[in-house]
Amino acid sequence: MILHEDPRSGNCYKIRLTAALLGIPLQFRAYDIMNAETRTPVFLANVNGNGRIPVLQDGDKFLPESNAACFYLAEGSGLIPDDRFERADMLRWMFWEQYNHEPNVATLRFWMAFVGEDALNDLQRALLPGKREQGDAALALMDKQLASRRWFVGDRISLADIALYAYTHVSDDGGFNLKAYAHIGDWMERIASEPGYVPMNKETPLAVRGPAD
Amino acid sequence: MILHEDPRSGNCYKIRLTAALLGIPLQFRAYDIMNAETRTPVFLANVNGNGRIPVLQDGDKFLPESNAACFYLAEGSGLIPDDRFERADMLRWMFWEQYNHEPNVATLRFWMAFVGEDALNDLQRALLPGKREQGDAALALMDKQLASRRWFVGDRISLADIALYAYTHVSDDGGFNLKAYAHIGDWMERIASEPGYVPMNKETPLAVRGPAD
Repeated sequence: MILHEDPRSGNCYKIRLTAALLGIPLQFRAYDIMNAETRTPVFLANVNGNGRIPVLQDGDKFLPESNAACFYLAEGSGLIPDDRFERADMLRWMFWEQYNHEPNVATLRFWMAFVGEDALNDLQRALLPGKREQGDAALALMDKQLASRRWFVGDRISLADIALYAYTHVSDDGGFNLKAYAHIGDWMERIASEPGYVPMNKETPLAVRGPAD
Repeated sequence: MILHEDPRSGNCYKIRLTAALLGIPLQFRAYDIMNAETRTPVFLANVNGNGRIPVLQDGDKFLPESNAACFYLAEGSGLIPDDRFERADMLRWMFWEQYNHEPNVATLRFWMAFVGEDALNDLQRALLPGKREQGDAALALMDKQLASRRWFVGDRISLADIALYAYTHVSDDGGFNLKAYAHIGDWMERIASEPGYVPMNKETPLAVRGPAD
């Protein structure tokens, strides 16, 4: 399988981490979204008509959306709970991540650490306080959930933890104060201690998806 | 099972429609988000700490996030494909719906049809052209996908169709010109012809979730 990705993107890292925890080998094809490499006619026609990465390729099939790709890799493994309610509850946190967490926590990381606060346009500047507030609300909700439990769903790591870990553990890049969330800190240590864990590659050009992308 | 909902919300309608197509009886508990009925201490403590509807209750368990609730109801039914790739591809469209479609198509419906264009604040006014453009891009991507196929995934209706139908079929409320998307029109007719189909309740107070909610 081939992961079409930018190594800087937390959404891409989710898939890398899922594959690593499961011992599934992946090949990688890198794109730089800052240079619109996912908007070329060839990419749009063959990889993803939505012009985004990550996309997981399995043979001649292409699967966009990071959380769907993680689900594809993890079906039948312990990363997806056996219990029907817990399985849906795992998806609940993954949908919540894409709606309430990523557009705030990941977008601020992109704006602050890669675009640069001085280079933001007027609309981004106007959105910043709201995204800061909603990002902190998302982190606070996670912290509350983790106050009484080790993992988001059930009694072991699942895709819900992986999906939420990706942008949370680098949220200080976006100016969030992770030290304020002690339970998140403990949970991040548990994830980093999992057999097969791989760190996020922070060396190469960034790509996170945001409203302007 | 009890659906905590506002009958006006497309996200709530997804769950109603899924249950109707499957013949699963639901009870309903209505909230008016315009009056912050999902932000009370009791709601936050017992139903959803994220302060949102819909929430599907099964006994003493509460499941927020519309698409997760649909998955919970539909597991083991024909609304979720048997094929592993198709199942992930269904989730791909459902994640895409929450990230690329709902924040544009549903939010403009809320702003235009319920808040009223004249009552929008400056930030909402500044966001409007971008949301219009991205909402049209989402509808265009759907139309393109449906040009060569009857359903989003596989050869029959799945949760992907239900998730995308909910806000698409009322997107004219938000000022989108559905007549411009012929394949979407045909697909909407197919959905409305499914045995067990129920229409959206448009009579009672609206609630869709948006950035200000």
